[in-house]
Amino acid sequence: MFEITDLSDILSKLPGIGKKSASRIAYFLIMNKNIASSITKTIDAVLSDIKNCSICGNFTINNPCNICSDSSRDTGIICIVEEPKDLQAIEETGFYKGQYHILMGNINPLEGQGPEKLRIKELSNRIDNEKIKELLIATNPTIEGETTFLYISNMFKDKDIKISKLATGLPMGGSLEYSDKLTLIKALQLKQYFTK
Amino acid sequence: MFEITDLSDILSKLPGIGKKSASRIAYFLIMNKNIASSITKTIDAVLSDIKNCSICGNFTINNPCNICSDSSRDTGIICIVEEPKDLQAIEETGFYKGQYHILMGNINPLEGQGPEKLRIKELSNRIDNEKIKELLIATNPTIEGETTFLYISNMFKDKDIKISKLATGLPMGGSLEYSDKLTLIKALQLKQYFTK
Repeated sequence: MFEITDLSDILSKLPGIGKKSASRIAYFLIMNKNIASSITKTIDAVLSDIKNCSICGNFTINNPCNICSDSSRDTGIICIVEEPKDLQAIEETGFYKGQYHILMGNINPLEGQGPEKLRIKELSNRIDNEKIKELLIATNPTIEGETTFLYISNMFKDKDIKISKLATGLPMGGSLEYSDKLTLIKALQLKQYFTK
Repeated sequence: MFEITDLSDILSKLPGIGKKSASRIAYFLIMNKNIASSITKTIDAVLSDIKNCSICGNFTINNPCNICSDSSRDTGIICIVEEPKDLQAIEETGFYKGQYHILMGNINPLEGQGPEKLRIKELSNRIDNEKIKELLIATNPTIEGETTFLYISNMFKDKDIKISKLATGLPMGGSLEYSDKLTLIKALQLKQYFTK
């Protein structure tokens, strides 16, 4: 038998949800059974249909995803991000119209997370096979993100492609996901070239 | 087919969850399938097992609920609250050891919500049949809560029972659910008597 407290305990594991919010949401769900059952159905449906795009790696229902199969987008530039939610943040600005590549993480030596766990081999294949003119490395402005940027920019520095990164202006230690649109657009506009 | 945006749309209907938090939670659920499936299972289980206590009206798995069937609690006082979450807030202080009665709402004439929709008949029956010495009316310090307080205190003013309310000190327009424990304990300690 599950008690309401079991429900609020599990809800408090969600990001940004504390004990009080979890309890409030639990009572809300009990009093709004329609919304509660829509939520459980949608979670189950999304989790069963979702897969990774075979090109960029983003979560998607269709493969290739809607972005990779959109012929109106610039195919000469790949924006490299750590996580799908970072892609989402950039897409919401409406400013960037190129391709994406999702690393599915970053390099974090302290946690034993090396580059071999990232989708770098796939990136390398794309660079060999697609006509890429530029890599925009949009890792987070954190120690791990900067490490990942340096690793990737160093790896491809001898290729005939421009390597850029998001303009500084994003606060160090912050997160790309939570920056406001204007800051993110500024960072896209002022992207800095590091090679060529 | 459901997209991730469908999931964040439905999650943003939860109280206190905005567009950004909903999107963050959606990605979290996709990347943490174990937690996601625990949440859907717990919601489904709680919603199927939950019922209202036939005495106080609180949400419960057992009937009567654990509070109504706890013989160590004072049976001479009933604390009247609007919603189950208000009971929860008072229980968490650990200060009150009497009975409860949940109205399941408040009197809100502007929304056509009169006293007939509240569990007042059930309260009246309890007052006639249980040895009640005091009603502690702990409605929220809002217009609707005050209206409800006045209606109930007036209804039972000729009975041989004390009627009290939570001490002022709770900010008007605030909500009982979100007050901190110390303020709530103070309000319990300083409860004001209105009759006898």
